[in-house]
Amino acid sequence: MFWRAFVVWGRRAERGDMKELQFWYEFASPYSYISMMRIGDIAEQVGVEVHYQPFLLGPIFKDFGWELSPFITYPEKGRYFFRDIQREAAAYGLPLTMPAEFPQRGLLAARTALVGMEEGWGVAFSQAVYVRQFSEGLSISGEEDIGFILESMEMGEVGGILARAQSDEIKGKLFKITDQAKALGIIGAPSFIAREELFWGNDRLERAFQYALGY
Amino acid sequence: MFWRAFVVWGRRAERGDMKELQFWYEFASPYSYISMMRIGDIAEQVGVEVHYQPFLLGPIFKDFGWELSPFITYPEKGRYFFRDIQREAAAYGLPLTMPAEFPQRGLLAARTALVGMEEGWGVAFSQAVYVRQFSEGLSISGEEDIGFILESMEMGEVGGILARAQSDEIKGKLFKITDQAKALGIIGAPSFIAREELFWGNDRLERAFQYALGY
Repeated sequence: MFWRAFVVWGRRAERGDMKELQFWYEFASPYSYISMMRIGDIAEQVGVEVHYQPFLLGPIFKDFGWELSPFITYPEKGRYFFRDIQREAAAYGLPLTMPAEFPQRGLLAARTALVGMEEGWGVAFSQAVYVRQFSEGLSISGEEDIGFILESMEMGEVGGILARAQSDEIKGKLFKITDQAKALGIIGAPSFIAREELFWGNDRLERAFQYALGY
Repeated sequence: MFWRAFVVWGRRAERGDMKELQFWYEFASPYSYISMMRIGDIAEQVGVEVHYQPFLLGPIFKDFGWELSPFITYPEKGRYFFRDIQREAAAYGLPLTMPAEFPQRGLLAARTALVGMEEGWGVAFSQAVYVRQFSEGLSISGEEDIGFILESMEMGEVGGILARAQSDEIKGKLFKITDQAKALGIIGAPSFIAREELFWGNDRLERAFQYALGY
């Protein structure tokens, strides 16, 4: 019922103006992985432009008094969510291999993604980071991991990209973006913003698109 | 896509044996209200038997170190969830009026519901508690509130029911049920259990039904 209505709404929107949706994602977040793998197809289908925005969830969790991921702080929640993530990935037909270290530090990935956003390869890079981490279960926290991803994307000047990712300018930019996330009331990832309305969680992706389309 | 597959699966299951789904709900929980209003129709449509199980979330949150609702402990989360609850209720066509006091104490409601489950009016009573609390925005925490609900259900012997709800036997029963919830790994409400698999949240209701049906 919900999905059917959604498809009809999408078609209707094609007659109107281009609508926008902000997609806020944290690299360590497996639900962000699921949304990253889904959002492009839906956006194309319903004619909504997605603004991809990597950010850091750590500083927001710190404000809650959580020094670690809630999956770790609350082991009962962790047990539930690992099972839920498996089921959700399966339901969307996505491979899932949880990395040995979880959650991983997504700091360098986020900084590199910001460089990529400036240069036009940020979305492809972000997808590659998620595939490496949650499809293949590999590390994404080290410089060698990010370097490997950039090389497999056939980016030249990998050393130069990594240096820029670690520059004060990019560090400051990520800091500012994460402050902006706090100001927007973001409490988790993935988050979506449509017409100034905040939606949290992969299971709110369709709702966010509907809202972006004006329904 | 998801919903369409779900309806087909439901039809298929009609040929098989009666499947079961446990529905664990906490009276103070607005998402439990939404599930309570949805679950009966879906269960009938797909041929799954629902076991209604009121319980207390407070002792589980206490184990997390939360003395209050997470909506209160984390004001940013509270702000988000109040908005999300409004949107979800609207999406399912349910009226929503948040009660002035939130969250309310659902202790007496839960105890009374257990009496009702023994006597065959527990589900109707539970629905009436949710309607009073979240459709009408009224109090459900006091003896006069529960008494009013029982009277409007045209139950005789309201005093006798309330006395039984406060008996050591029913108190002990609710205590035991809440321990059982912990043992099952329940971390929030509403929760659903299908074939020993735990699902949390109104947005997992369809998934839980699918799993109950064997998919």
